[in-house]
Amino acid sequence: MENKVSLQIIGHIYNDYDGKFGVPRQSGLVEEVISRVVLLPEFRRAEAFRGLAGFSHVWLLWLFSEGFASANGDNDDQREWQATVRPPRLGGNQRVGVFASRSPNRPNPLGLSAVRLLEIAQEAEGPVLLVAGADVLNGTPLLDIKPYVPYADARPQAQGGFAVPPEQARRLQVQIAPELLAMLPPAKRPALLAVLAEDPRPAYHAGRQEEARTYGLSFGGFNVRFQVQGKVLRVVELERI
Amino acid sequence: MENKVSLQIIGHIYNDYDGKFGVPRQSGLVEEVISRVVLLPEFRRAEAFRGLAGFSHVWLLWLFSEGFASANGDNDDQREWQATVRPPRLGGNQRVGVFASRSPNRPNPLGLSAVRLLEIAQEAEGPVLLVAGADVLNGTPLLDIKPYVPYADARPQAQGGFAVPPEQARRLQVQIAPELLAMLPPAKRPALLAVLAEDPRPAYHAGRQEEARTYGLSFGGFNVRFQVQGKVLRVVELERI
Repeated sequence: MENKVSLQIIGHIYNDYDGKFGVPRQSGLVEEVISRVVLLPEFRRAEAFRGLAGFSHVWLLWLFSEGFASANGDNDDQREWQATVRPPRLGGNQRVGVFASRSPNRPNPLGLSAVRLLEIAQEAEGPVLLVAGADVLNGTPLLDIKPYVPYADARPQAQGGFAVPPEQARRLQVQIAPELLAMLPPAKRPALLAVLAEDPRPAYHAGRQEEARTYGLSFGGFNVRFQVQGKVLRVVELERI
Repeated sequence: MENKVSLQIIGHIYNDYDGKFGVPRQSGLVEEVISRVVLLPEFRRAEAFRGLAGFSHVWLLWLFSEGFASANGDNDDQREWQATVRPPRLGGNQRVGVFASRSPNRPNPLGLSAVRLLEIAQEAEGPVLLVAGADVLNGTPLLDIKPYVPYADARPQAQGGFAVPPEQARRLQVQIAPELLAMLPPAKRPALLAVLAEDPRPAYHAGRQEEARTYGLSFGGFNVRFQVQGKVLRVVELERI
């Protein structure tokens, strides 16, 4: 009992990632997607952000929501922590320790993302942060915002274990018919193309040849259905939800 | 009520920082101090760390303890968040927004530190992480351990606002009589010297000329008393607690 701590949700992160498929595997991979960080009423104080505009990047500390618990291919229904998980970067079929991963299935469902700070807007909802490169679901609960302090946080010499950077070569070439693309608001077009190029298939499918299979994801109010053949992803259907 | 979340303390961080004075202002500044990360019994599972040894750095997500709340020179007795704080890097007399700072006086007392992973030891207490460069008090409660993923976490081009790196020129030259230094176990000597060189005076004193004043800090089971004159810090007393 004394080993519990109660924390407050201070706001939420809103973006076009309507479902867990399509959410990038780390922050910074898809900067085309802009997220809005909206605070709960008691935290809507402009002075709490004084000086933040001088930082190019911020940390978001957030909570994995229930729907995210199986993003690594594990069982959907559980919120319990697992000592080992199967990270997508390893193809989803090799187990590593949960503390050697950024998996949701950890003792505390805390997420950590470095994002680029575009603007602190003063809106009807108080100060709203516009950030690029978040790797979180739409509606994700937020616990903290911290400035990214390069001299302490940036360790470019760090060795990354199995978490190798996504190679250009791994990216998919996206094909979409002009009449399908035209259904999307112009601002969402480059974002969806970038999300699809990251290969949003479940980890245990990516790399396999399952040419007949149609995959789906929800993005920005649309259901997107696609097929993958080799390094080419073809959008076969787009439908407003 | 629904905006609260209950998290579990998974372990504690132990080191020689017995009091808040002397704790470095960011992680990585004093790598001479080694911290031990010890898990609570239910998390002592070796397989939860499988693969972590391949990472050179890890993130520690931790809780500011009560005694830390005034490290930025603010009022000692409160645990409430403050919209603005006075960061030590600005001399402790200029206010910035709490979300533009790494101050403890935030809505959720969450701390975030990048530390160098030296070893995962298998001890009687289960897997124990030995890490260098933590900026936390001895006994700090731990919420999560994550691998430092360079391609997502290291943003060396990030602009740091007012959080400029500590200049060599700001460091103090430390003078300590050989008979005082000899009181310390050899392993603690370089660590204490590094801590003192960082200028552990409260922010609102550093930079001022208060030559007559004697300051104190607790480190590794010792009370250390010192005076500062210009860029020279002189240890005047060392006493086992």
